Amino acid sequence: MIDLVLVGIGTGNPEHLTLQAIREINAADLILIPRKGPGKTDLADLRQAICAHVLTNPDTRIAEFDMPRRNADDPDYLKGVDQWHEAVAGAWNATIHENLPQGGTVALLVWGDPALYDSTLRIAARLSPSPRVRSIPGIMSLNMLAAAHTIALNDIGAPFLVTTGRQLRDHGWPQGVDTLVVMLDGECSFQHLSPDDVTIYWGAYVGMAEQILLSGPLTRMAPQIIDARDVARARHGWIMDIYLLRRTRKPRTM
Amino acid sequence: MIDLVLVGIGTGNPEHLTLQAIREINAADLILIPRKGPGKTDLADLRQAICAHVLTNPDTRIAEFDMPRRNADDPDYLKGVDQWHEAVAGAWNATIHENLPQGGTVALLVWGDPALYDSTLRIAARLSPSPRVRSIPGIMSLNMLAAAHTIALNDIGAPFLVTTGRQLRDHGWPQGVDTLVVMLDGECSFQHLSPDDVTIYWGAYVGMAEQILLSGPLTRMAPQIIDARDVARARHGWIMDIYLLRRTRKPRTM
Repeated sequence: MIDLVLVGIGTGNPEHLTLQAIREINAADLILIPRKGPGKTDLADLRQAICAHVLTNPDTRIAEFDMPRRNADDPDYLKGVDQWHEAVAGAWNATIHENLPQGGTVALLVWGDPALYDSTLRIAARLSPSPRVRSIPGIMSLNMLAAAHTIALNDIGAPFLVTTGRQLRDHGWPQGVDTLVVMLDGECSFQHLSPDDVTIYWGAYVGMAEQILLSGPLTRMAPQIIDARDVARARHGWIMDIYLLRRTRKPRTM
Repeated sequence: MIDLVLVGIGTGNPEHLTLQAIREINAADLILIPRKGPGKTDLADLRQAICAHVLTNPDTRIAEFDMPRRNADDPDYLKGVDQWHEAVAGAWNATIHENLPQGGTVALLVWGDPALYDSTLRIAARLSPSPRVRSIPGIMSLNMLAAAHTIALNDIGAPFLVTTGRQLRDHGWPQGVDTLVVMLDGECSFQHLSPDDVTIYWGAYVGMAEQILLSGPLTRMAPQIIDARDVARARHGWIMDIYLLRRTRKPRTM
């Protein structure tokens, strides 16, 4: 029998770890760490660094596995994701059974929180035989974005929508909500919006040493953010960014 | 000069504290803890318990202050909130200047995360002279709800809306989104929705020892949740709950 624990580790600052996450890491028999290939090595390195920093149990082993790549060229997005999840589940199964043939507790360190735009829970559901799965919450990039800008996510009593660049591009600004948090946007989809009365709070590598923050009226900030994103991506070889858009339709009480 | 640090402490499990939160608590000259009066003492007690658990700096002082009450009878909701924020800022000012007449670093322990349906940032903006404000992210109740039910917040590539019971009551299910996270709902507003094809994941006291979880089709679960909520609230004298609603309009790829 396998117990699978998905541990949210925050957004790249090792100090984002909770006491619960540290306890769970040390309670595991095996920690699975994905190797993502060149260009993303600092992310795998970060998981190794976190283990080096907080792992004190000498009986906990670490096993790396090669992370399958998603076929981004498949025009059927959901089918591409489906095949990729199946391949990842296969890689987990092989690594777990090689290292824990008698069963035990396996921890996966999940960037941010296992509940937010992360596939780990869905991939876990494909494992056979089914493991017992638990989820340990972590600091999400949207928390860190708000903290870094010292802003609230919501206006008083008002809703906010968490969405993706693709949704924003395909459907424009959604009805009935004045605050959007946009994730997974490789194409600066904010540039397709009508920018009047919109303020943007943008962050890249939020929580990490490389953190970049820019904010202001979207009209003025859009070109600056596009430039800063290109420069940072070229320098680091990868980028992870997120932004909050707030539309001011009428004056609000602070 | 005052440095004000808003420290997210999670949802009631002392193990939700991050290493960063613990460091900031110990770096403060003064920790402000609100006294909320009878019925909510376990929340104030929790902040004291957290300090007892992680505060190791002998120079850090703790000061309690009486939390002003919001006039919930004021029919003008935003005006009532405005007056309440002003009163809280006054209480902070008095307690800070009594304890730190020469200035220093003040920490406020914020339930969940300072960015989510919390007034601390807005109240801090009213202080005069203006302090330097920093925000430390924390585990939010919505993270904990998802972790407790071992679910993802979003469907693949799909948005989700974080909203309030009042919004749901006044405006119904919003357009263009199939997942809602509902907070601040004292009136089980889900009972006014058309329940077909909706699944609810409900949690009270999420992350605490008293945690209660219920989930299933809304048609079946609505009366059970209303009952469980009444019983728990009577037993504890207060309740804090949150739920996720997911509408299945068509089969989705997991």
